[in-house]
Order: sequence, then structure tokens, then C-alpha cells
Amino acid sequence: MTDIRPLKAQDEGDWRRLWADYLAFYETTRPDSVFRATFTRLLDAAEPMRGLVAVADGRVVGLAHLIFHRHCWSEGDTCYLQDLYVDQDMRGEGLGRKLIEACYAEADAAGAVTVYWMTQEFNYAARMLYDRVGVRTPFIKYQRP
Amino acid sequence: MTDIRPLKAQDEGDWRRLWADYLAFYETTRPDSVFRATFTRLLDAAEPMRGLVAVADGRVVGLAHLIFHRHCWSEGDTCYLQDLYVDQDMRGEGLGRKLIEACYAEADAAGAVTVYWMTQEFNYAARMLYDRVGVRTPFIKYQRP
Amino acid sequence: MTDIRPLKAQDEGDWRRLWADYLAFYETTRPDSVFRATFTRLLDAAEPMRGLVAVADGRVVGLAHLIFHRHCWSEGDTCYLQDLYVDQDMRGEGLGRKLIEACYAEADAAGAVTVYWMTQEFNYAARMLYDRVGVRTPFIKYQRP
Amino acid sequence: MTDIRPLKAQDEGDWRRLWADYLAFYETTRPDSVFRATFTRLLDAAEPMRGLVAVADGRVVGLAHLIFHRHCWSEGDTCYLQDLYVDQDMRGEGLGRKLIEACYAEADAAGAVTVYWMTQEFNYAARMLYDRVGVRTPFIKYQRP
Repeated sequence: MTDIRPLKAQDEGDWRRLWADYLAFYETTRPDSVFRATFTRLLDAAEPMRGLVAVADGRVVGLAHLIFHRHCWSEGDTCYLQDLYVDQDMRGEGLGRKLIEACYAEADAAGAVTVYWMTQEFNYAARMLYDRVGVRTPFIKYQRP
Repeated sequence: MTDIRPLKAQDEGDWRRLWADYLAFYETTRPDSVFRATFTRLLDAAEPMRGLVAVADGRVVGLAHLIFHRHCWSEGDTCYLQDLYVDQDMRGEGLGRKLIEACYAEADAAGAVTVYWMTQEFNYAARMLYDRVGVRTPFIKYQRP
Repeated sequence: MTDIRPLKAQDEGDWRRLWADYLAFYETTRPDSVFRATFTRLLDAAEPMRGLVAVADGRVVGLAHLIFHRHCWSEGDTCYLQDLYVDQDMRGEGLGRKLIEACYAEADAAGAVTVYWMTQEFNYAARMLYDRVGVRTPFIKYQRP
Repeated sequence: MTDIRPLKAQDEGDWRRLWADYLAFYETTRPDSVFRATFTRLLDAAEPMRGLVAVADGRVVGLAHLIFHRHCWSEGDTCYLQDLYVDQDMRGEGLGRKLIEACYAEADAAGAVTVYWMTQEFNYAARMLYDRVGVRTPFIKYQRP
């Protein structure tokens, strides 16, 4: 039995473990202050952020972080799916797709004009899923050096 | 004599012309309600948006739109450079670079952790500039269908 | 027990089946005249082509086609790995890697300066292997309209 | 007055200069033995190679190197446009396009099924031309480490 539900205060331990694993995939870590700030914000209704978790047999095994922000091309905000992660040993169960679909529902509920995300060109496993639930755009990301 | 300065209320006519040209480059248009909302927000200090214009010999010939938003990986906001445009007949004068550098200064003033933007993979003219003032990341953009 | 060995005349039936499957992956077919010409050439020592097959438990379950050709940048020829295929139900056994390594050995035996191949940017399954046994170059392919 | 014509023995000095400049663009050089072998082969009717040069006001200012080779998917050979170069100070005169169109004519005369070439993803100046005279394919190049 799997389920997608909003992140809750009591998920902190599971969330910390999953998000650390996600950051490790990107070969990075973050100080505890960032873990605290982000977790607090994800639970704060006044913040333009939402957290979702995937639960399988009572265990929290996946997460998605949404950020709503202004968009010059529309009156409504857009929704940026910044982080998405499913436990290594729970891959292939459709949880990634369910998390993304739940993000779409969150975005609809918030009136966001669209949902977008970014992935490394060579993240083949992720792209296999993204090609099915989303659309690849021709946009590539640049950043300040 | 060229200069980069914040967008002002009296720039509305020039801004509308330039932004319409920019949108036309992307083969799109926006209703007047979006022009009004975006212009108003770019001038509103309470909004997480900033507008910059490039001025050459007293004429407004370029624009840049910044959006500040939350970032799960840091306590501070990030800065998204969503729109950048220089009048067709003013290209090659270094105004694009000056606009981006002014965005970096705005981001610094606002305490943003970085500045990022997206461009179409085949926008060669833009990428020639971006490769000099920014760093290409391996990230590509997906969106909801 | 798996083995990689040169294509032989008696493989024609198996080879036709595998190569048709491979072409079907690219959503194409070829007339019988091309099947005949290519099979004949792959067996003809006077042609700059080589065929290899993967054999598992006596069954031919994979193929690789090599083409040697001039290269302006070197005195020796280069080796183009044009076709590579492993039966759908034999994937994940390392046969693709073994075929590529056998191609490298063929290229060495022929004195080829390198081995190269091309793959669709979105062929994730293939690229997972290619990233391990080869090097992605920044080159993309254009062709006559 | 510009013209595209086959490479001739008396072009050797000009050809060496242009090809060295082309190789320098790719941050490489080649020993004299390769210059000699390639020039000789380009002039040798028995070799599956052709050289073309662009001439402007009597000066040799551009080159194109073609290699014909087998193709498993067709009975006829294909044509690989390996090298293409126009003198730095002669860019923007349409010589690159004329060289490519002359390659198409050569390929037709030789019965080649198509013409293809490869370019670095970030070679914007070249791609601006290639997008007009050719078609970008989704194929990317891998090579032996």
C-alpha cells in the first residue's frame, strides 16, 4: 500500500534521512541550519513551499519539494518542483510518478500556471520517468560563475 | 553613453515595446492584463521582482527581469533572471553583458545565493554571451504537459 | 555461457532476425536487397566491414557491425561501430559490453586509430552502457536534409 | 568572385595553411606525415576521398574534405564531410554554404545515399549555418576511451 501525503512535523527524522540521500546523489551536503530552515518552511503555510512524502507500508520512502514563485509571463505563480527522491530500494514501484502527479494536483489547488523542474542531462533513470509524465523543453540552465 | 538603471514608472511605453519584441522572439504574446500585472509588480518594492533597463543615448533599449524565490538548498533566496532583451539594432554593444552584470549586483544587494537563467539550446547568439558571463550547467528543463 | 565470435555464413537466419529487430527499434525496415548486400559484405574479407555476434547457450542473441574507413587526421583508418544489438530478453547480462570490447579488439587487430559510434541523445538504456565503456564527445550529428 | 573547385596538386601550400588553421581551431596539430598522407589521398582518384577548395579573387580561402564509406543500411556508400574550414577573414560571405552545397553535388555524382557531418554542440557559429543547410539529428558521438 503506497500513499502520497503532505509532509508533517513528525516526519522530520525520515525526511532528514531521505533528503540527505538525495543531496548525496548530487554529491553535496548541507549544514544543519539549512535542514532546519527548509523543514520549517516546508511546514509553514505562510511560505510558498510545500513538501510531499511517499509512504509505503507505513514507511516514508520518498519526498517532493515544491516552490511557488512569480512568473513574468502570467498573473498566476508557477510551481518549481525542486527536489524529488525515492529510496533506492523502492524504485520501480511507480512512486516517482505518483509524487509528480501529486505535485500537479498541489499546483492545481494553488492555481499555479504550470509545474517545471530541472534534471541533469545524463540522469537517464530520472529522464525515463520524466519523458512519460512531463515534456522535455529545449531550455538549458546557466548560472552565475 | 550607455547605462543600466532600475525600471521606472515613466518607462512603461518603452518597456511595453521591448517586452513585446522579446515575447515575439519566443513566438508568443501576452494579454494586456499580464503586461499591466508584470509592470506593476516590477515597480512594487513589496514584490520579489526587479526590473532593469539599458539606456543608450537617452533611449531605453534593453530590459532584464529578476525574480527572487526560495531555494531548498540554502537559507537565502536565489535569483532567477527570467527575461533579458536588447533591441535588435543595439546588439553587439555589450549591453547584454552589462545587464547581466547589473543583475549580479542586484542579487548581491538582495543577498541572493546565486543567479540562474534558462535559454533554448539553439539560441546560439545568446549562448555566445552566456558562455562568457555565466556557466552552463548540465541541467535541462522539463515541464508539465 | 556467453561468447563473442565473428559472424559466419550459417548465422544468416539468426542475423536477419536480430538485425530486423534492431532496425525496428529505429522504426525502420530495409528491403531484402540491403539485407543480402550487408550480410555478404560482412562476410567478405575484401570489404572494410566486420560482423560480430554474441552467443549465449548456443543461441545467437546479439550483433555488432563495424565499418573501417579513412580519417583525414591520421594515416590509419578509424573504426565506426554502426550497429549494436542484443536480444530484448538477453539484456542486462553484459553482452552489450562484451560486444563493444570485442569491437575494440577487432579495431586493434586492424590497426584502427579509434572506435566511435553514435546514439540518440534520449537512448538512455544504451547511454548507461556507453558512459561506462566509452567517452561521450561534444559532437552532434548533422545530415543533408 | 568566389568559386568552389576540386583541390589540385598546386594548392598544397594554401591547403597546408588552411588545414593547420582548422586543426588549430580544434586545438590540435598533426605531424607532417599526416599532412602528406591526407593531401596525397585527397588527390588520388583511387582513394574514397575528395577535397574541395573555395577560391575568392584567386586566393584559396576554404576547404572541405569528404570521405565515402560503407553503410550497413544501404547498398550505396554514404558521404562523411569530415573537415570544413573558411579563412577567418572570409567568414560571412556564404563560402561555408557554397562548400557544403558543392559537397552535396559531389555526393550525388558519386551516388552516395546521404552526406553527414559532426560538430561540437557549442560551435554556435557553425551551427547557425548547419541549421540552414542541414538537419540536426538526435545522434551524439561516443568514442573509445
